[in-house]
Formats: sequence, C-alpha cells, structure tokens
Amino acid sequence: MSQFQHIKQAAYHANMQLPELGLVLFTFGNASAADRERGVFAIKPSGVPYAELRPEEMVVIDFDNNLIEGEKRPSSDTKTHAVLYKHWKNIGGIVHTHSTYATAWAQTQQDIPILGTTHADHLAVDIPCAPVMSDEMIKGDYEYQTGFQILDGFKAKGLKPEEVEMVLVANHAPFSWGKSVEKAVYNSAVLEELARMAYLTRQIRPDAPRLKEALIEKHYERKHGANAYYGQA
Amino acid sequence: MSQFQHIKQAAYHANMQLPELGLVLFTFGNASAADRERGVFAIKPSGVPYAELRPEEMVVIDFDNNLIEGEKRPSSDTKTHAVLYKHWKNIGGIVHTHSTYATAWAQTQQDIPILGTTHADHLAVDIPCAPVMSDEMIKGDYEYQTGFQILDGFKAKGLKPEEVEMVLVANHAPFSWGKSVEKAVYNSAVLEELARMAYLTRQIRPDAPRLKEALIEKHYERKHGANAYYGQA
Amino acid sequence: MSQFQHIKQAAYHANMQLPELGLVLFTFGNASAADRERGVFAIKPSGVPYAELRPEEMVVIDFDNNLIEGEKRPSSDTKTHAVLYKHWKNIGGIVHTHSTYATAWAQTQQDIPILGTTHADHLAVDIPCAPVMSDEMIKGDYEYQTGFQILDGFKAKGLKPEEVEMVLVANHAPFSWGKSVEKAVYNSAVLEELARMAYLTRQIRPDAPRLKEALIEKHYERKHGANAYYGQA
Amino acid sequence: MSQFQHIKQAAYHANMQLPELGLVLFTFGNASAADRERGVFAIKPSGVPYAELRPEEMVVIDFDNNLIEGEKRPSSDTKTHAVLYKHWKNIGGIVHTHSTYATAWAQTQQDIPILGTTHADHLAVDIPCAPVMSDEMIKGDYEYQTGFQILDGFKAKGLKPEEVEMVLVANHAPFSWGKSVEKAVYNSAVLEELARMAYLTRQIRPDAPRLKEALIEKHYERKHGANAYYGQA
Repeated sequence: MSQFQHIKQAAYHANMQLPELGLVLFTFGNASAADRERGVFAIKPSGVPYAELRPEEMVVIDFDNNLIEGEKRPSSDTKTHAVLYKHWKNIGGIVHTHSTYATAWAQTQQDIPILGTTHADHLAVDIPCAPVMSDEMIKGDYEYQTGFQILDGFKAKGLKPEEVEMVLVANHAPFSWGKSVEKAVYNSAVLEELARMAYLTRQIRPDAPRLKEALIEKHYERKHGANAYYGQA
Repeated sequence: MSQFQHIKQAAYHANMQLPELGLVLFTFGNASAADRERGVFAIKPSGVPYAELRPEEMVVIDFDNNLIEGEKRPSSDTKTHAVLYKHWKNIGGIVHTHSTYATAWAQTQQDIPILGTTHADHLAVDIPCAPVMSDEMIKGDYEYQTGFQILDGFKAKGLKPEEVEMVLVANHAPFSWGKSVEKAVYNSAVLEELARMAYLTRQIRPDAPRLKEALIEKHYERKHGANAYYGQA
Repeated sequence: MSQFQHIKQAAYHANMQLPELGLVLFTFGNASAADRERGVFAIKPSGVPYAELRPEEMVVIDFDNNLIEGEKRPSSDTKTHAVLYKHWKNIGGIVHTHSTYATAWAQTQQDIPILGTTHADHLAVDIPCAPVMSDEMIKGDYEYQTGFQILDGFKAKGLKPEEVEMVLVANHAPFSWGKSVEKAVYNSAVLEELARMAYLTRQIRPDAPRLKEALIEKHYERKHGANAYYGQA
Repeated sequence: MSQFQHIKQAAYHANMQLPELGLVLFTFGNASAADRERGVFAIKPSGVPYAELRPEEMVVIDFDNNLIEGEKRPSSDTKTHAVLYKHWKNIGGIVHTHSTYATAWAQTQQDIPILGTTHADHLAVDIPCAPVMSDEMIKGDYEYQTGFQILDGFKAKGLKPEEVEMVLVANHAPFSWGKSVEKAVYNSAVLEELARMAYLTRQIRPDAPRLKEALIEKHYERKHGANAYYGQA
C-alpha cells in the first residue's frame, strides 16, 4: 500500500464532495490534500469524471511540482496548488471549483463585499479578487503564475491565508484552502453561499452598505478569536 | 430517561428538518423547543454537524440562560432564544436560520414588503427588519441584546408575536417562532419563500405596490380570524 | 366503493404531483378532477399536508358548490373551481398553485409576455393576468368572485379557455386547467417555466421584444392546429 | 435485432440524460446519434414522455430526412438535425433543449458574451445567436430552414462547427452537437451553465468586459490545441 494512502484517501473524498455539494459540473474542479512532513500533496487526475474516480488514482506531487507517485496526468491546475503549498506553510488542503455565483463575481473582477454576519462568521474582510493577470504572465507558465497572482494579491492587501481562506481569480474562478482539505471543501461551499447572498443583496438594494466594524469584529471573534465560544471546546 | 425527553426529541426533529427544507448550509441554524411548565427549552449544541446530531445531545436551558441539562455547549445564539421565551409567553418554539433570500433581505436592512396573498395568508404586515444594533449593544452581551433588539422592534411597531411569527435582524439573518417548534420550522420555510417571491416581484417591477388592505384582511382572516375557514376544524 | 372513485383517484394523483414538480410548498396548492356526466368534481381537502393525503379523503362537490361526498372540509379555493367548471364546459381539471415565478408575475399585476417559442408551443398570447378585484368583490363572496374575475378577464380579452389554459390572478397566484387534471398539472408546470424564462429574458434585456406573429402561429399551429404534427397521431 | 441498434441505444441514453441533468421539462428536448457510414441518425420519437421512452422506439432517419426505420413519428425538430448532419460532416450527435438560461438568452436575440475561463475552456468566441428568421422562412419548411439559419449564421461569422459546438436560435432555444451524442449532451449542459454565469455576471456588473484575448487563447488551447494538456493523453 502507498505511503501516501492517507492523503490520497482524503483528496479522493474531498473531490467526491464537490459535485454532492453542487459546486462542480462534470470535471470543473479539483481538490488536493497535503502531507506537510513528506512535503507532498495528492490531487485529482485531470479530466476524470467524478463517477469513475478511484482513490488510488490520485496523483502525488511535491511542492516544486515534481511527480512523486501516480500513473495519470494530474489536474491542469496542479502548479497553482504547488505554489500555494510551498509559500503558505500552514495550509493542508486546497479546493478549486467553478461554482456558479463565485465564478460570476470573479468574472466581474470585483471583491465580494462583506454585507452580513454570515460572511463575518468566516472572514473579516471582503473576499479578495486577485487582479487580471498580465499577458506576459498568461503566456508564460500560466498555472504557476496563477499561484503567484494569488500570493501577490494577498501581500498587496496585507491578508493572511490563515485568516482569509478563499480568493477569486479574476475572470477565472475561486480557490479556497484550510488546515485540512475537509476545511477547504467547507470553505468552497461557504464562499459560494456568500457570493449568492451578496449578489441577491445588491440586486435588492444596489447601495447596501458594508457590515459595520463592530459586527465584523463580534462575529469573527466569536468563532475565531482567543475567546471564541462557537462550537465545542 | 431525561424528564426533558419530549422537548429534546422535538428540538432534534426540528433541527433535522432545516437542512431537509434547504434552509441551512452546514451548521448555519438552530431550533429550540420549550416546555412552558418547567420553564426550559431544549436547543441544538453549537457547531455540531446535522449528520452527526443525536436527540440526547440537545442542551436544556432555562429562560434566564442557565444550563439545566446537557454536556455540550449550547448554540451560540442561545441567549437570544432565552430572551424571546422569557418575554413572549405564548411561544413554544424558535428557529434561527441563515436561509438565502431572507438573509439577503436582512442584509439590505429593509422590511420585506407584503406584495401578495401568499404573504397575507401568514401575516398582515411587512415582515419586520429589526434595525442595526448600536456598537454598544454589539460590544456588550451581543446575543442577549439581539433578543432585546427584536423585542424592541416589535414594541416600536406595535406588533404581537402571536400574529407576526417572524423577523429579520438587520445584517444578520431571520428568526421565526410559533406555538410549537414545528410551527416555527414551518414559518422559517414560509419566510424564505416570501422573501424569494418579494425579491422576484421587485426585480420584474421595481414599483410593484403593496397588497391592498381588503386583500390583506381577507386572506389573513380566512386563515387566522374568528371565522377562519382554512384547514380542518 | 364510491361512485366517484375515478375522479378522487385522479385528483389525488394530481395533487401529489404538485410538490414533486416543485410547484407547491407545504399545502399552498390544490388540484381537482371533474366528472362532467355527473356534474361534480373531486378536490383536495383544505390544509391537509401532502405527505398525509389519501385518495379517499378527496371531497366531491357539484358545480354549484354543494358538498356531494366527503367528510373533510374542501380546499378554501373550492368555489373558484366550481365557478370555472360551471361556465367553461370543456375543462375537466383545474390546478391552483403559488409556484414561485408565476406568483411573482401575479404580484406585479402584469401579463407574462410571449417572448419565445417555448411559450408559443403552448399558447398564442401573453399569459393573462386577471386584474385586481374591487374591495366589494373581496369583501363579498371572495373565492366565488375570484372565479368570475377570471371569467370576466377572459371575456374582456376575447380568450377561449380551450386555447389559453392558464391565468394569473393579480396579487394572488396562478390557476391552470385542461381537458383532464393531468393536463392541468402539466400546464401549471409549463406556466412556471414560462414565467421563469420571461423573468430572465427581461432581466438580461429589459426591452426584449414580443415574439413575431409568424413564429407564434407556426409554433402554436404545429402543436394545436388542424395540421398539427407534434407528438404521436 | 436492428442494424441500427448502436445508434438507437446511444440516442436513447442521451435523451434520458437530459431530464437528469435538469435540461428539459417534460418533452422539451431531443437528442440524436448518427452513424456516418450508413448515413443515418436515430432520434427521439415526438412527444413521448421520457419516463415511458424505450430504446427500440428511437426513429432512424437519413440525412435527407427520409424515414429508414421506426414506427413512431420522429421529433418535430428532425429536419433541423438532418440538415446539420448533411452539411457538417464531422458531427456525430446533436442535442436540442429548451434549457432555462440558454433559452432566456435566445429570447433576447443576443450572443452570450465570453466573460471567463469557464467559457474559454470550451470555445474561444461568444456563443452565437442565429438571427430571427424571416417570415418567409418560418411559413415555408420551418424546421428545415432552422437548420439553414444555423448554417448561414456560422458561415457569416466564419465559425467552424468543430470549434464551436453550440448555438442559440433567436427566440427559440439552443442546439449543441459534437463528435458523439455523449459530447453533444455534455455541451448542452456546459452551454446552460455558461448562460447562467453570463447572466449573473452582467446582473452584478452590467459593463463586465469580455475576456482578454490572452486568456481566451490560453484556456482554449490548453484543452483543444495541438499541445493540449488537459485530461488524460
């Protein structure tokens, strides 16, 4: 049995959840799970339908994008995963989808504004949209550059990947991550719901204001702060 | 067996209905059932996934928010439930969700206008939106104050909780209630549908007028008045 | 066994299809099936949840709204059904729902414009919206008057119930009918889809034009004209 | 056993997928599978509900619209399929639906703009909308002319059916195709999702720009170009 069985299983289960949660059509998405000690991650093979996917088909890649184990070609977005794992030391799983509402926001090239406590329960800022890439970046090593576009966007805005576990890539689609791939899947579903709520809010009232700071702090802190009291201890 | 078994069972079943009715994603909601004689209510433990929830895990709390029975931490919104039970003597169940359309209206800080008979079948006024809380209230005992914000909003508008069994909390999400927790669940689904219909109506025709008084009276009275003739006697 | 068994069965099955087709929430709808020879129709009892409904509970009523058979109170909309059956001799089934998109259009008090061939496959005119009733009609025999409001709306526009098998009642919701109750159910689902398509079309392009006459004729005639060639002979 | 068993089976399975994928209501769609060697295709019989459909009922037609095998009347859109098969030598399957979002765009008489990489993963141009037909074409051999309207629209825009596997017919609905009928079904679901994403994008930001050329090229080429690296080799 593969020494990477645990991350292959985790990545498999995460991938299978994406269509169940209504986040991907056909093969429009991928999830990966990292093993930080071994410095590798397991990711979905490219273009394999979810209905046919098997755990042992997950492809194992290191953080410099070298193939470690697996017979199939990995997801075409693998380099983006590798870059994020390499530079963000505290994340253990990544999910990429083309979920409908989040992708629509990405296509507008806009951040998703923080409009309510559902949003503040998960992050204390607008969901950032990494800017459109330059033609040079696109024509170069595209998927690799996509990773850097995300990293640079976070740096420019002073965001930490431990606090903001999701991003839109302009004109493309969302990525999310977390300590584990299970959390990354959770975040991708949360992002889609926040995108949908923000869409509806602005349709009803185009000038609906951002959430006031006191509510942002309160909701974010009660779930994430030192004195968090949400969930079981 | 717990002397609170009946309300734990009722609260459990009500909580389980919320994802089935499409009203909650993950753990974004909670339902509670009161025992008026004993002066307590059973509520969902905080942050436990619906798929893992068991009836015996429901937490029993009194109307002053004291823990009476249970090993898990209760829902983070428990104090809001306690305040409403304490001050509104005729309600037996409460449901809180972040259902999509109702939450979008809450994020606009607007009442949901009464635009049709589907609405008037259930309540004779706009669905009220309790105003945004002051920073002082938010930074104080937040969930407790949320309850008072609802109570005060009802007083200010002269509404009775027996006639208007639902509310939006601005920038947050809806609460609903009823004689029983089953009725509160029903009301939370009705509220979501009314929110959706009002959204669509105003998208098609931004100046769609409020329902005329004669129709409001007729529909509300045929279901709720002294001479109601809807349903079985 | 009841001599009305056939229409009670037909009405039962039609009612059960409404939640399956996503056209009703809880008890927000009713279907009836007529026996023209006996001059009666079977209709859903009022306020009984679909999950508990049984065929033998259907209530049999004549076209003057007299109770013929049944122990339960019939749907609160029964008089509207009776009026339509009495005056429109060729209809054998009626369905009333509060389906979301059709109800939103009804709440705008507007006809649903004919914008494409999906619409013209079923009717050759805008889906009519019967105007808001006068206060006098509402305060009088409301459900009876609702029937007359529909009849009068059809007369005023020169429409035939054999050609236009659906209507919106302003601020209320849709009714549909047909030769059989199965056809009435079909029509209620078609109406909801046409309402949704018209909504989306006008959101994308507010001035999207009505379908040109040649296309209306072509599509309506190929399904309904003397030389129809849709379906099996 | 019929010598056309393979295409009847393929057409049957493709037709059955349409309601499963949420692309058709009742009988609002049809799929056909071609046998290029024999110069025929199998298509759904007209107006038969999906729940009752059987593989042996598929009707076999040649590319000049002659009936080759089958006892039922073929889909009323059969001539459109025949014209496309006759003139486009490389397509092996065709699907026609009235899927909601794509049909709404067709009703606006507008192309669906290319706004993101989800779109560019599948085609490098806006999804074309064939213009409204002249009254002469409509009153003549309508379904035959629908095929020519599609062909002429592609010629006028310099599009190749091997690169652009989908079209809207103005005021009507979408058609899609592909090397196989399985691919045509896939394309019809992709089209519906692209239509929905474009709708949402323009609702959020009415002036959302078309995707830049470098991204169009990159995404289209990585899936379709000579050096494609999406999927398994």
